[in-house]
Amino acid sequence: MTPTHIVSIYDEELKYLTRRISEMGGTAEQMVGDSVRALVNTDMALAQKVISEDVILDTAERQINEKAIVTIAKRQPMAADLREIMGAIRIAADLERVGDLGKNTAKRVIAVQGSSIPRNLARGLEHLAELALMQLKEVLDVYASRNIEKAKEIRERDDEIDAIYTSLFRELLTYMMEDPRNITPCTHLLFCAKNIERIGDHATNIAETIFYMATGSQPEGERPKDDHTTSVGAIEE
Amino acid sequence: MTPTHIVSIYDEELKYLTRRISEMGGTAEQMVGDSVRALVNTDMALAQKVISEDVILDTAERQINEKAIVTIAKRQPMAADLREIMGAIRIAADLERVGDLGKNTAKRVIAVQGSSIPRNLARGLEHLAELALMQLKEVLDVYASRNIEKAKEIRERDDEIDAIYTSLFRELLTYMMEDPRNITPCTHLLFCAKNIERIGDHATNIAETIFYMATGSQPEGERPKDDHTTSVGAIEE
Repeated sequence: MTPTHIVSIYDEELKYLTRRISEMGGTAEQMVGDSVRALVNTDMALAQKVISEDVILDTAERQINEKAIVTIAKRQPMAADLREIMGAIRIAADLERVGDLGKNTAKRVIAVQGSSIPRNLARGLEHLAELALMQLKEVLDVYASRNIEKAKEIRERDDEIDAIYTSLFRELLTYMMEDPRNITPCTHLLFCAKNIERIGDHATNIAETIFYMATGSQPEGERPKDDHTTSVGAIEE
Repeated sequence: MTPTHIVSIYDEELKYLTRRISEMGGTAEQMVGDSVRALVNTDMALAQKVISEDVILDTAERQINEKAIVTIAKRQPMAADLREIMGAIRIAADLERVGDLGKNTAKRVIAVQGSSIPRNLARGLEHLAELALMQLKEVLDVYASRNIEKAKEIRERDDEIDAIYTSLFRELLTYMMEDPRNITPCTHLLFCAKNIERIGDHATNIAETIFYMATGSQPEGERPKDDHTTSVGAIEE
């Protein structure tokens, strides 16, 4: 009976990683949503909450890494299982970064305080955040379901986020040109928009990692990413 | 004689990882240096060179990951050796990001084209880049030497970069307020300054990874990072 016994402990360890990643995903989503709500409502208390929550993701990432390394050392997994563990490490790193981006947006709430954000700008930021969060949510669902076709789809769908980011970028520049008093707050909003746009990149990274976990290779073809907007300013990394 | 033989092949594999990381470091440094030179001299050809070099780091990171995973699967390393391999994966990811930041700066050269960058702004950007590159170079030396005390020192020394970034941020806002025609190019320079500042963060990450590789734990104490500048706008992640 020993092999079964070992396998089931091993499964427990993999399940631990999967569960912790899902938890991290939930926390990251919450932080990003809250940070944008804090920003458009200048809600300092909510911003402070987001800032204080960052440590949850830092701790979770460290614990996932530790568990992953202990599991590798003890179980000496091969091929698919090893990829599963390495993938968990990568996804945890992406989710930790998503939390950092939420925290950075939250920190900027204090800097835009006192300058009211025009309604359509706020709506633009909210819309950008909705799309980025939807992408993050879908990719976390794919992590649970391991639907590889879906993972490829998400990877090919960053375009909408980029288009909205570009239009927000233009709009923010316009506000800055209209009145020099808008320059400082709009600069912070530019960075916030960039933070949100980068969440889409992390969702794409996670989709690639899930593809790799399932197949052992990277998705084919260049990652769809380009800047049709160099002249106006919304430039991808 | 077999154990010695196995150990020496294993050493070769670890050496391969160390060598490829050093190469990645060299490429990343070069790309960042070139991107800032391209920016301050509006040198489109050099910018294009940086953009085209990004694939070198992407490929190197993928190869390092593959080698690392094959090594783990074949050699089933314990403790220190496993940390060595996991550390290589993490450092490769940081260096790949540094290359992305250089590429992003290079992409913005086209956007600031036509607007001459005031001499003292250019000097500020160059100075920021020098400091960030020095930090990156030192951390890569520490990776080669494994001088742990030095790794801790680098981690505690991001402050100078932050101070220069903050002063550049203020200066850029001033230019934008002086003349609305400065707004678009200065916005790009803001993102370039942020890119360079983030290289310092990646150097700090690498220093932490080296510490972890040597000791199996994270350096103690909160990572020195804070924003005394929320009101002016230079905000850390």
